[in-house]
Amino acid sequence: MKPSIPKGTRDFTPYEVYLRNFVKEKIKLNFELFGFEPIETPSFEKIEVIGGEYGNDGEQLIFKILSNGKKLSKADLDSFNNQNYSKFANSISEKALRYDLTVPFSRYVVQHQNELTFPFKRYQVQTVWRADRPQYGRFQEFLQCDADIIGSNSLWQEIELCLLYDKIIKDLGLKGVSLRINNRKILYGFSKLLGFENRFNDFTIILDKLDKIKFEGVEKELIKQNFAKDKIQKIKEFILLEGTNKFKLERIKKAFEDSKISLEGLNEQNFIIDNLDEIGGLESIDLKFDLSLARGLSYYTGTIFELILPNFPDIGSIGGGGRYDNLTAKFGGKDLSGVGISLGFERVLMALHKFKLFPKGLNNRVQVLIANFGFKTSLICNSILKKLRAKGVNSEFYPDDSKLKKQLSYANSKKIEYVLLLGDEELKNEEFFLKNMNEGTQVCFKISQLESVVLSRLKK
Amino acid sequence: MKPSIPKGTRDFTPYEVYLRNFVKEKIKLNFELFGFEPIETPSFEKIEVIGGEYGNDGEQLIFKILSNGKKLSKADLDSFNNQNYSKFANSISEKALRYDLTVPFSRYVVQHQNELTFPFKRYQVQTVWRADRPQYGRFQEFLQCDADIIGSNSLWQEIELCLLYDKIIKDLGLKGVSLRINNRKILYGFSKLLGFENRFNDFTIILDKLDKIKFEGVEKELIKQNFAKDKIQKIKEFILLEGTNKFKLERIKKAFEDSKISLEGLNEQNFIIDNLDEIGGLESIDLKFDLSLARGLSYYTGTIFELILPNFPDIGSIGGGGRYDNLTAKFGGKDLSGVGISLGFERVLMALHKFKLFPKGLNNRVQVLIANFGFKTSLICNSILKKLRAKGVNSEFYPDDSKLKKQLSYANSKKIEYVLLLGDEELKNEEFFLKNMNEGTQVCFKISQLESVVLSRLKK
Repeated sequence: MKPSIPKGTRDFTPYEVYLRNFVKEKIKLNFELFGFEPIETPSFEKIEVIGGEYGNDGEQLIFKILSNGKKLSKADLDSFNNQNYSKFANSISEKALRYDLTVPFSRYVVQHQNELTFPFKRYQVQTVWRADRPQYGRFQEFLQCDADIIGSNSLWQEIELCLLYDKIIKDLGLKGVSLRINNRKILYGFSKLLGFENRFNDFTIILDKLDKIKFEGVEKELIKQNFAKDKIQKIKEFILLEGTNKFKLERIKKAFEDSKISLEGLNEQNFIIDNLDEIGGLESIDLKFDLSLARGLSYYTGTIFELILPNFPDIGSIGGGGRYDNLTAKFGGKDLSGVGISLGFERVLMALHKFKLFPKGLNNRVQVLIANFGFKTSLICNSILKKLRAKGVNSEFYPDDSKLKKQLSYANSKKIEYVLLLGDEELKNEEFFLKNMNEGTQVCFKISQLESVVLSRLKK
Repeated sequence: MKPSIPKGTRDFTPYEVYLRNFVKEKIKLNFELFGFEPIETPSFEKIEVIGGEYGNDGEQLIFKILSNGKKLSKADLDSFNNQNYSKFANSISEKALRYDLTVPFSRYVVQHQNELTFPFKRYQVQTVWRADRPQYGRFQEFLQCDADIIGSNSLWQEIELCLLYDKIIKDLGLKGVSLRINNRKILYGFSKLLGFENRFNDFTIILDKLDKIKFEGVEKELIKQNFAKDKIQKIKEFILLEGTNKFKLERIKKAFEDSKISLEGLNEQNFIIDNLDEIGGLESIDLKFDLSLARGLSYYTGTIFELILPNFPDIGSIGGGGRYDNLTAKFGGKDLSGVGISLGFERVLMALHKFKLFPKGLNNRVQVLIANFGFKTSLICNSILKKLRAKGVNSEFYPDDSKLKKQLSYANSKKIEYVLLLGDEELKNEEFFLKNMNEGTQVCFKISQLESVVLSRLKK
């Protein structure tokens, strides 16, 4: 049997784990710098919790877990015979793998609301799973990093989240990042003025494809789905508006002053953009008010964000988020407006690879290898090893009495800096050699010098 | 809809995540101290990789993932109608959640053998899932921490693993821990001498229950499964042998010197116990040669370990492991003897709770809350916030202009040490108050003093 892993999943080598941890830590540190605290939710949720939140397309991508043992006897064969596979699946499955972190968070908040103090600021760095067709930058198992605040509708939160993105991007060293920002209320006002507010979600799902299919494509699809051509023309000008954020805000305000809801969205945009400016703006991110930003998920109700890397268009967005006023309602939570951002960890990682932004030395953890020259010297070697470790020096003893060449090549492949050599001859003289693998030099020490001289040299 | 989570799973609050991370980090640091490097494997594996490794009982506990969409049309209804639910399940499922970390590791090693340098020392701290009936200390989703070396049969590895357990237990502060150690070769020699070597696995599975059902229970079950009564009497003496490790080794050696394989196992035991003694023994763990230790999993072939807490018997073992010579053979890996240990993270955590071994202050991450006195002072507050964060002080601005009492109670519930107060009056005087929530005191500073005085006071 030739071993392999399921498509869309990955094994991570030690070096890859080090890189992933490096980025994870940077993100977590900044989440905590901004006052967010970590929670963790189960890998799988009940299907009734996850279902119905991600639209038809999303629903197809949820991984369901097969019920165990006798529960399978409840399989709904009628549905199977009618080729209603979705209903069939639900008859033999009660839970599903996490599809994102926002819905489990909403469930968490309502379930634990009596133990929480609001506004509740949490972050979550956990795996999510989607049965997507694997392709460049898209996996079936991937890590997401979310920060959300729930229980306050203050717009200072939106400002916080812009600053948080900015700080993370700065610390990672990514250049040329843009943060697209829009407000679903403006778009909703649009659709109301033009009389298709009951098809608002269809409209935003199509508009959301603008990046990929350009305005022509959006227009074509809107027409195909029976949106009136003259109405589409009316919004084209605003969707494609260029200029500064201020200019766009003014221009759109003038055109949509009849819509109370659009105006509300525009004022919110104004507050965010103005006050961000007042406190010095963003350092490493270009904030861009963009009326074409729609976000596919239906639960957003106010500000929406999308973090993009225009100089690496292949990977799409590297983050996104927004405000959702009603997400907890499904679970019985009241008056709990939430707002949050997410970082697409895998894509951030790809960008850091592409622009070579990882610091050197991340793969160098073991500091000393003690070579093995047979049983006679093994005991003294293991005593030395114990002393090194007691001082916090990552170290190991080569387990077999192999040729020295093989042992040194082992040290090289693990990027171990020092090899300690203590054979029969050295034992007689109560000494050992410390070989520096980077410089190719070696120095002789008395065994008695180990703690006073050698350890200070190895101090990290 | 009243939200809840699947049985056997858990939500973790921020405080619980801090505790879990504290333990995780201690374990990881020690794994790295001993020269192990991290890898990560996918949450799910192909069923043919996972299946057939965990015995009949284990097989029932594997979570299978339902295939998506049209693949469900392949459901094997004949098997369903014959109530062969296991075969039915396999017709609509191609992958399953990780059941342990050892089998995925073996798969990893064979799949990547050309990129690896042997001996390969890896650690893995990842979630595993088992459809076990939830009970005290037993969950359906839990974390495991494994360290394994593959590609060397040196017994120094077994010694390393004992020392590694010892160091972790010492760092966590657990007292009274025992490490039971045995060797499957000794047991196999036993069964050969007594003529039931072809039922060796049945024998070990029953013997493994000794802790729970005492020797009487084991005897009863062995008889029930047609092991001859006189043979059982022959091993009773050795299974229940008390005394020092040395004494037991000598005693058993004498009785089984006719069995080459038992003798081999006994010599291995001897090597480990002797040389551990020579280099100073274990500090925080009592090493106990125990012939009744059998381990349920059939893949062990040499030394076996079990880490127990006799003063907290409710939780069973807190770790285990052993040597497996043939596990990679299934995947085409040759000559790859492996040996490893696992820590039952959840049980370790329960023990730390029970014996109150967590250090204080693990729940205190946010250092400063800036109170909100309305829009007029919000801008200056946010500028101060930016400066605090630039210096690495975890801090936040209360988003709403709520009553101060509510804001202070928020700070209290998050264990925030300092609250910065800057209202209209203070703004006029270009000052602010810094309130120490632990001491109940507050000091007035000029805003201009922020960086020189206040930040140095807040330095962590």
